[in-house]
Amino acid sequence: MLRFLTAGESHGPSLTAILEGMPAGLPLSSADIDRDLARRQRGYGSGGRMKIERDHARITSGVMNGKTTGAPIALVVENLDYAKWRDRDIEPMTIPRPGHADLTGAVKYGYRELRLALERASARETTMRVAVGAICRAFLRQFGIEVGGYVLSIGEVCVPNHTNEVDAAIYRARFAQAEADEVRCYHPPTAEQMRSCIRAIMDARDTLGGVIEVVALELPPGLGSHVHWDRRLSARLAAAVMSVHAVKGVEIGDGFAEAARVGTQAQDPLYVEDGVIRHRSNHAGGLEGGITNGAPLVIRAALKPIATTLNPLDSVDLATGQAVKTKYERSDFCQVPRAVPIIEAMVCFVLADALIEKLGGDSLEEMLPRFHALRRLTLDALPMDNQPWRFGYE
Amino acid sequence: MLRFLTAGESHGPSLTAILEGMPAGLPLSSADIDRDLARRQRGYGSGGRMKIERDHARITSGVMNGKTTGAPIALVVENLDYAKWRDRDIEPMTIPRPGHADLTGAVKYGYRELRLALERASARETTMRVAVGAICRAFLRQFGIEVGGYVLSIGEVCVPNHTNEVDAAIYRARFAQAEADEVRCYHPPTAEQMRSCIRAIMDARDTLGGVIEVVALELPPGLGSHVHWDRRLSARLAAAVMSVHAVKGVEIGDGFAEAARVGTQAQDPLYVEDGVIRHRSNHAGGLEGGITNGAPLVIRAALKPIATTLNPLDSVDLATGQAVKTKYERSDFCQVPRAVPIIEAMVCFVLADALIEKLGGDSLEEMLPRFHALRRLTLDALPMDNQPWRFGYE
Amino acid sequence: MLRFLTAGESHGPSLTAILEGMPAGLPLSSADIDRDLARRQRGYGSGGRMKIERDHARITSGVMNGKTTGAPIALVVENLDYAKWRDRDIEPMTIPRPGHADLTGAVKYGYRELRLALERASARETTMRVAVGAICRAFLRQFGIEVGGYVLSIGEVCVPNHTNEVDAAIYRARFAQAEADEVRCYHPPTAEQMRSCIRAIMDARDTLGGVIEVVALELPPGLGSHVHWDRRLSARLAAAVMSVHAVKGVEIGDGFAEAARVGTQAQDPLYVEDGVIRHRSNHAGGLEGGITNGAPLVIRAALKPIATTLNPLDSVDLATGQAVKTKYERSDFCQVPRAVPIIEAMVCFVLADALIEKLGGDSLEEMLPRFHALRRLTLDALPMDNQPWRFGYE
Amino acid sequence: MLRFLTAGESHGPSLTAILEGMPAGLPLSSADIDRDLARRQRGYGSGGRMKIERDHARITSGVMNGKTTGAPIALVVENLDYAKWRDRDIEPMTIPRPGHADLTGAVKYGYRELRLALERASARETTMRVAVGAICRAFLRQFGIEVGGYVLSIGEVCVPNHTNEVDAAIYRARFAQAEADEVRCYHPPTAEQMRSCIRAIMDARDTLGGVIEVVALELPPGLGSHVHWDRRLSARLAAAVMSVHAVKGVEIGDGFAEAARVGTQAQDPLYVEDGVIRHRSNHAGGLEGGITNGAPLVIRAALKPIATTLNPLDSVDLATGQAVKTKYERSDFCQVPRAVPIIEAMVCFVLADALIEKLGGDSLEEMLPRFHALRRLTLDALPMDNQPWRFGYE
Repeated sequence: MLRFLTAGESHGPSLTAILEGMPAGLPLSSADIDRDLARRQRGYGSGGRMKIERDHARITSGVMNGKTTGAPIALVVENLDYAKWRDRDIEPMTIPRPGHADLTGAVKYGYRELRLALERASARETTMRVAVGAICRAFLRQFGIEVGGYVLSIGEVCVPNHTNEVDAAIYRARFAQAEADEVRCYHPPTAEQMRSCIRAIMDARDTLGGVIEVVALELPPGLGSHVHWDRRLSARLAAAVMSVHAVKGVEIGDGFAEAARVGTQAQDPLYVEDGVIRHRSNHAGGLEGGITNGAPLVIRAALKPIATTLNPLDSVDLATGQAVKTKYERSDFCQVPRAVPIIEAMVCFVLADALIEKLGGDSLEEMLPRFHALRRLTLDALPMDNQPWRFGYE
Repeated sequence: MLRFLTAGESHGPSLTAILEGMPAGLPLSSADIDRDLARRQRGYGSGGRMKIERDHARITSGVMNGKTTGAPIALVVENLDYAKWRDRDIEPMTIPRPGHADLTGAVKYGYRELRLALERASARETTMRVAVGAICRAFLRQFGIEVGGYVLSIGEVCVPNHTNEVDAAIYRARFAQAEADEVRCYHPPTAEQMRSCIRAIMDARDTLGGVIEVVALELPPGLGSHVHWDRRLSARLAAAVMSVHAVKGVEIGDGFAEAARVGTQAQDPLYVEDGVIRHRSNHAGGLEGGITNGAPLVIRAALKPIATTLNPLDSVDLATGQAVKTKYERSDFCQVPRAVPIIEAMVCFVLADALIEKLGGDSLEEMLPRFHALRRLTLDALPMDNQPWRFGYE
Repeated sequence: MLRFLTAGESHGPSLTAILEGMPAGLPLSSADIDRDLARRQRGYGSGGRMKIERDHARITSGVMNGKTTGAPIALVVENLDYAKWRDRDIEPMTIPRPGHADLTGAVKYGYRELRLALERASARETTMRVAVGAICRAFLRQFGIEVGGYVLSIGEVCVPNHTNEVDAAIYRARFAQAEADEVRCYHPPTAEQMRSCIRAIMDARDTLGGVIEVVALELPPGLGSHVHWDRRLSARLAAAVMSVHAVKGVEIGDGFAEAARVGTQAQDPLYVEDGVIRHRSNHAGGLEGGITNGAPLVIRAALKPIATTLNPLDSVDLATGQAVKTKYERSDFCQVPRAVPIIEAMVCFVLADALIEKLGGDSLEEMLPRFHALRRLTLDALPMDNQPWRFGYE
Repeated sequence: MLRFLTAGESHGPSLTAILEGMPAGLPLSSADIDRDLARRQRGYGSGGRMKIERDHARITSGVMNGKTTGAPIALVVENLDYAKWRDRDIEPMTIPRPGHADLTGAVKYGYRELRLALERASARETTMRVAVGAICRAFLRQFGIEVGGYVLSIGEVCVPNHTNEVDAAIYRARFAQAEADEVRCYHPPTAEQMRSCIRAIMDARDTLGGVIEVVALELPPGLGSHVHWDRRLSARLAAAVMSVHAVKGVEIGDGFAEAARVGTQAQDPLYVEDGVIRHRSNHAGGLEGGITNGAPLVIRAALKPIATTLNPLDSVDLATGQAVKTKYERSDFCQVPRAVPIIEAMVCFVLADALIEKLGGDSLEEMLPRFHALRRLTLDALPMDNQPWRFGYE
């Protein structure tokens, strides 16, 4: 079992995470984490704060002599911004912003000051998810598993003719292309349109959402299970991705497009090549019956545009009961490019957890040989009895 | 904490579920459950099996004198079909059907006979989810909470101009309309098209998927939380819905459509009427910051068409390594109408769990007064301090 | 993760359990379970009911062709007694018996009839724990792990000079001796005294408790962990054992006796023999730092005497508020011999869960080779770097 | 659900904890936590380290304006000792100390350096449990619930004629007396003997264990449940207490002494006084059927003596395979007085979790009125139907 808790407010002194259950023997340094933290801080359409923070994760436990020990790993990221908030009187906030947790958080916890909701509900919290995900990513890499992602659409601009593939090489090329681009789109002409779209929305004092696709390559078949609803990898991934700020939709493989197809066009036929069973297509996004099938695992997230806009929205001042406009809080104009590593992080966490479950064990040294013995989609690894049989319950 | 386990194979003697954590004092009889089981067995486009089974849930514990006692509730549904399977030799199954867990289940568990995967991976398992969900529904009803659903699309036929609403009455009308219709669509002209579409697909020896919307009415604000990723109600709902057979996509509120809008058009502005805070629209589907906001909670599921088609698909005989066509297993042509109560059941379970968490307590008698004191979206219930304040961590 | 739920009332139609997470490929039949159910029903000092029930567990899922499939296993045990309770009016029960859940259960759940608490709080529930434990035992046996137990004391009669041992053979002899005896004590002269003691208590219309020791042999080292409190095997075992009816104390190894010793006498010194690291004693009961050390795992439970006595106790009639005496409910005079398989069952469950965690995997075929590669307490398996090193956190 | 993770090594830079699930509105400052941290650092028989560390918990999240917000609370305690360990080469450790996790930790995680086990297995980790427990204690106090503890025995010296009581005032006096004493024993003559006993063991270069009793006062009846094994409060408490370093035995109420009594002497008879139902004795330690009964909750822990002794023990040098003596690591001579707040902390955590479960809700403001409506052990609160009834399952 792999588990983590995060803590920290947007303008508090620091953000903290504890990751518990990571096996021993994984080489790990702050640099492994800071790389993803930097990716989270870069992206066309960011607001001002990203110029203030340069996130660095201090590892304060769970790593000795450069390797994980199996003990809980504590991570701390300082909020440089805190200095400015620390000793000053903070103005009351009484006007909830539609689309945020301002109102719902206050209702739930009985707040008499809306910033108490905002401080924790802010996407600043995802910093620690990315930090935790970076450790999971380092773990997965030891098994040759790679997780990457890119932006498929911003507002109404989307990559044309995008498809799910069985060939990992195509995804690797997309990852590289996206990483080189400020909007994290793998298709340069679309990326160019996205950028101008974001520039226009900034001028319009508005915001834009979009769709992100995250893909995991070289996963072994057999992660997740069909035997119980909460063991399905699809369910676990859906929860993790839907939990990210602003996500309102999740798809696996072709997702909603599958619902419009006929059955014979919606599946991925099998064939054998050199004794290996292969899929001709990847509509399923690498998951059949909630279990990885060895094809690239594909998951998509729809992010609504950030609810904080320079053009204010209609709201209510809870202190007076009067109809008022929202006040602006510093925010991104388009968070989508920056959200790619966040979705990746959540996917890395779920996959690391599922892999630990499949492999068992407490150290890389113990797990790697087990991994190499994992059943592959080869005919040899799947001998059939080919005999009549009986239920025989008693 | 509410939890349940289900057990049972598609052609085994019986299906079993245990629901643990249901408070005491809830009036409950088999009839409450059988009603939803019957709904799951009816629907345009079903295959032959539904004529065989007439599901009846026996309650064998947790209910005394007609009311729940707080003890675990065991439910048993007999498989009438079992008599035919019991004592006969069952032919070996060595050809995996693409899109099912036949192959992935065998890889995971080392099966040498594919039917071992099929028997548990079959959607027959959802019978017990519906049974458990029916108890949760009865519980929610005690608080005035209503959960219903309908089919939004079958294949390429979808309800035109469908929107999310703030007015519960509109949803109640839709539920009633859908319930009266064999395809469970609330829009009669579309329902008619859906039926002809299903007839055509039967003739074409193919299958069809579709999209289902499930809505919960009269939920109190404050279920779920923004403070930790796995407490967000959106995440918990996404897992529950994505875990249903054939679901490949989940949306909350406007879902993917939100990703294409600009920020000022994507939120639900607030206003006050008679001291009550209201939303002008319901793009968010009742969830802001992962917390219910008092508006109807709207969740959608995309179901791929059933992978078993009379027109066979390309596969491999694992016993011989030869390229072969799949063999037909009795199945629906379009499962979407019948899946409505399944999605509803999973939503009922998550909501009952979240409500128990919010209310605490062990009996309806204890919970009902607490429910009535729950904060409503009124100005009175949300007094603001309206004072400057300080972080003050130490 | 291995988990189970049980359901069922003492006089209801049947008892049910679902065990979820058991790997595939384990040979299993009802006979494997019924053996332990019969052990639970035999024992000197039992009351009348054991003559009525002859427990038989029907397996209704999760087993096909004589082996587990990895799917949830449902078990059903009929209550033969139910026929007598079914259609008759049951007299109200308004006098709580001290020492039972009659009063606390009613307070918690708001019962207006005490039998609602009694029906679920009855030790009849442990039938399903024993059934689940029997499956876990069958699983452990595949790895050569054996779990047995015996009675150490009844009332004030206890086995003289009892000690914890490092030699598994001594425990095997004790198991065999105890199993052959009606009070399940391995020491015949003490067993004889226990029997006369129980006869005397029956005459005195009173009841007796005692102490049970359960031991697991041939466990690999490395189950459980010191890295987090809830991963310590000692903690997990303590919860499982303390959860059994009437248990008021739990010890691991020498337990309370350790608290009275000086440190140099309280540990188990190490030595090497033929390259294997061995313990000279077993005060620790096989657990150091919450982790198995390869020595026999020893856990003890103190059971208070059954609270239902023919000599009534002072109580209160809740219907009248009057001081009254308790009424007798059919019960054992000494449940201790019969409780041995119950404690064993809970230990088997925890150990199976810990072993699955250590080995990972989904079938015996996958787990057995992993088990054989598990680190043993040999010098070869524990190569030391023997080099200076640095913390190096960043 | 209340949960926490701790992280940190004994000589690493800092210790960290995150407590998740604490309701909003609880006044909290570092001082509330430091008080218990100081209690953990004081105690007759401590070793040298306690002079180095003066533990102070920084709260870095989850508290704003002096009150909890419902968000996760992160706590950091610096290890002042770290400065000395940071940049120096640390000598290899290859000789496992019997009774510690040195060997078992290395076997489990594949360590090639034993200090990797020691650093996390050290009781230094309990600092963060005490910190978390202090927050839970502050929470419980808001409801009038008090948790205290004391030492009952050190080595062979124990408080004479100690009994469990129904009267909270007796416990309050014991708490005060113990707190004023360096060995935390409430009985001055025994305390004096304990001190001389500890002095003697220091001279003998050995160590001593003992028994601690922790008691919770003013708990409402109805926490925990009999309906499922893992809901029994007794089980949850046993796990929490057994998880503390060196604990080898746990008792509730009279514990093992109950096993030696006859049934009529082992229960707590009931009587009514002014409409309130009372217990004449408290053998049960406040728990019947795994549920609080309103009497003081009493739990005891047996701690073995610390395994690190100045007189070395027989061990093996894993680097050479030679029989050698253990090397000394700085340690206490008797940790028992200092362990009192640790056991208290674990009990506070379990009780806070159980109370949140019973009350539900997200803020003190919401929970306090619910608490006041909790059923008390009064005849009025327990109206009986006093009517014949029927099972009626269907």
